[in-house]
Amino acid sequence: MNLPRAIEWDGTNLRLLDQRRLPGEIVYLTITGIDQAVDAIRTLAVRGAPAIGIAAAYALTVAMSADPPAQRDAFLARLDALAARLRASRPTAVNLAWALERLRARSQRQPTLAALRDEAEHIHREDEAICHAIGRHGAGLITPGCGVLTHCNAGALAVSALGTATAPMYLQHAAGVRFRVFVDETRPLLQGARLTAWELDRAGLDVTLICDSAAASLMAAGEIQLVLVGTDRVTANGDVVNKIGTLGLAVLCRHFGVPFYVACPSSSYDPATPSGIAVPIEQRAAGEVLGSSAAAVPVRNPAFDVTPAELVTGIITEHGIIHPPLAAGLRRLIGDGQPASSSSAT
Amino acid sequence: MNLPRAIEWDGTNLRLLDQRRLPGEIVYLTITGIDQAVDAIRTLAVRGAPAIGIAAAYALTVAMSADPPAQRDAFLARLDALAARLRASRPTAVNLAWALERLRARSQRQPTLAALRDEAEHIHREDEAICHAIGRHGAGLITPGCGVLTHCNAGALAVSALGTATAPMYLQHAAGVRFRVFVDETRPLLQGARLTAWELDRAGLDVTLICDSAAASLMAAGEIQLVLVGTDRVTANGDVVNKIGTLGLAVLCRHFGVPFYVACPSSSYDPATPSGIAVPIEQRAAGEVLGSSAAAVPVRNPAFDVTPAELVTGIITEHGIIHPPLAAGLRRLIGDGQPASSSSAT
Repeated sequence: MNLPRAIEWDGTNLRLLDQRRLPGEIVYLTITGIDQAVDAIRTLAVRGAPAIGIAAAYALTVAMSADPPAQRDAFLARLDALAARLRASRPTAVNLAWALERLRARSQRQPTLAALRDEAEHIHREDEAICHAIGRHGAGLITPGCGVLTHCNAGALAVSALGTATAPMYLQHAAGVRFRVFVDETRPLLQGARLTAWELDRAGLDVTLICDSAAASLMAAGEIQLVLVGTDRVTANGDVVNKIGTLGLAVLCRHFGVPFYVACPSSSYDPATPSGIAVPIEQRAAGEVLGSSAAAVPVRNPAFDVTPAELVTGIITEHGIIHPPLAAGLRRLIGDGQPASSSSAT
Repeated sequence: MNLPRAIEWDGTNLRLLDQRRLPGEIVYLTITGIDQAVDAIRTLAVRGAPAIGIAAAYALTVAMSADPPAQRDAFLARLDALAARLRASRPTAVNLAWALERLRARSQRQPTLAALRDEAEHIHREDEAICHAIGRHGAGLITPGCGVLTHCNAGALAVSALGTATAPMYLQHAAGVRFRVFVDETRPLLQGARLTAWELDRAGLDVTLICDSAAASLMAAGEIQLVLVGTDRVTANGDVVNKIGTLGLAVLCRHFGVPFYVACPSSSYDPATPSGIAVPIEQRAAGEVLGSSAAAVPVRNPAFDVTPAELVTGIITEHGIIHPPLAAGLRRLIGDGQPASSSSAT
């Protein structure tokens, strides 16, 4: 399959596919410092919780490469200062903080550039393996002839390799299963229309783009058998923080009897946050909604919403599918921290 | 209040506010023949079920004015031929067929230009009175400090005078009641962002624009106490055909315990159609969704959806609010035809 790569890394140089310019142009940004990385994350040149984590890990490695302090304390102090700036660039994505914390833990043991690079590459390779595992666990949910609806982009562009929500789709497609994918355009930034529809179509899947508000009528008509989305964060109780519009889909699923599944790496699990109420929701600029054609009026533009655990049929992780009660399942399958966070020492 | 006029008529000339160019430009189209009227309706220069009915009535009058046949049969034959073309321009709006049928009934009694013009003006004046009556009946639903959500445009631009869904808002605002209106942008054509937000803001109301997909999170946060929309057609059983996205809002209302009201003139009641299943749903062009920024993939773009009667809290008509069971209430309050369709003979 022809899957795009959001992040390119050759051992020294970091290049990010500029997703703001998709699908019109395929342009890579070369990231040489923290300012550039923060800007790329904040302006959504790179987006999707896992991809942000990977990009931030490489960006931190790149930034540390310029004149790295030889002394341990100075090395860690500089790392912390740079990491703090990256961490503030996107508050909702828990993977960002998680990846930076992994680099810090590794550096505390081995305060060297080589170890930093190794840990970042490890995060990246793990993510690819995680996507494949999510795909294998979730593939059985996609049955021949079914209609799958997804929202925003939790695809190859948002993660690595197969993506998260798209991984079961890519694997079933590769296995010769025929099904249809409906993609919400995902206002205001149209990640569904620009990114998901683009990458699924490019990989040869049967894609149909719809307006976000058309999902209900498709469900009413019996055209959707499965809703499959990604997430930026799953809290201890199983609440799902994801792109604005996800909650509405989950409510529709409950009403129309459609299963609502969330796909994510275990690094999106945030056991320290008891429920979605405690998650700060990023409010983005009015201009994203207004564009050129709307009246100049006040705008409310939350980037995310919180889907309560009771509306979630299951969470597909690299360790398997977690069914309700989600809080217990998350604790059992993932534990009280991310299992990968201990990392493998080199 | 400063309300826009979608339709201007001076007794001879018909001018339609070109709503495709709002809010950027306020431009009126002078309609001199059927082709122009059909084009204006089809391309949504004039839109909203009642406004389409009024515009079509005037357009038919204007078209008949050019060399009207003196002989009764010829007059009616020409009227029918022109009306057929207007009727086909927008299949879902029942008011269009209804207005044309009124002109035909009047012409059968009085096959003259003067009678035609009188009937069209009557339809227009009735519509203004109907809007006021809807506003009076619905105003009590809007309580001080509440949040009202509306979708698409069932405002002054869609109807005449106060609009339908907006009429209770305008009257409460005029009465000094303070409340907030959230307006769905209403993809793909952004009637909420371009038209409703514009006309409410212009009239001095407290307006906040949101993406369609943000409605769920606002309801979850307790910011919406009432959803109030218009409709293109209410079938015999009380099903509501309205802009795509309405069904999703109604499902959200049921889930979050928010009242879901529909405002319409009794001319939107279609007792001849048993339920929403029987209503042809207009599928519009892919380009409306794709714009310039989406991937070039197949698109499903239904213009309307059907909200089943069981999700409707009440229907606000000029005769009062109809509560469930809607089928019986509609029959009792409106009857088996539109009461105005007999018209008052001059």
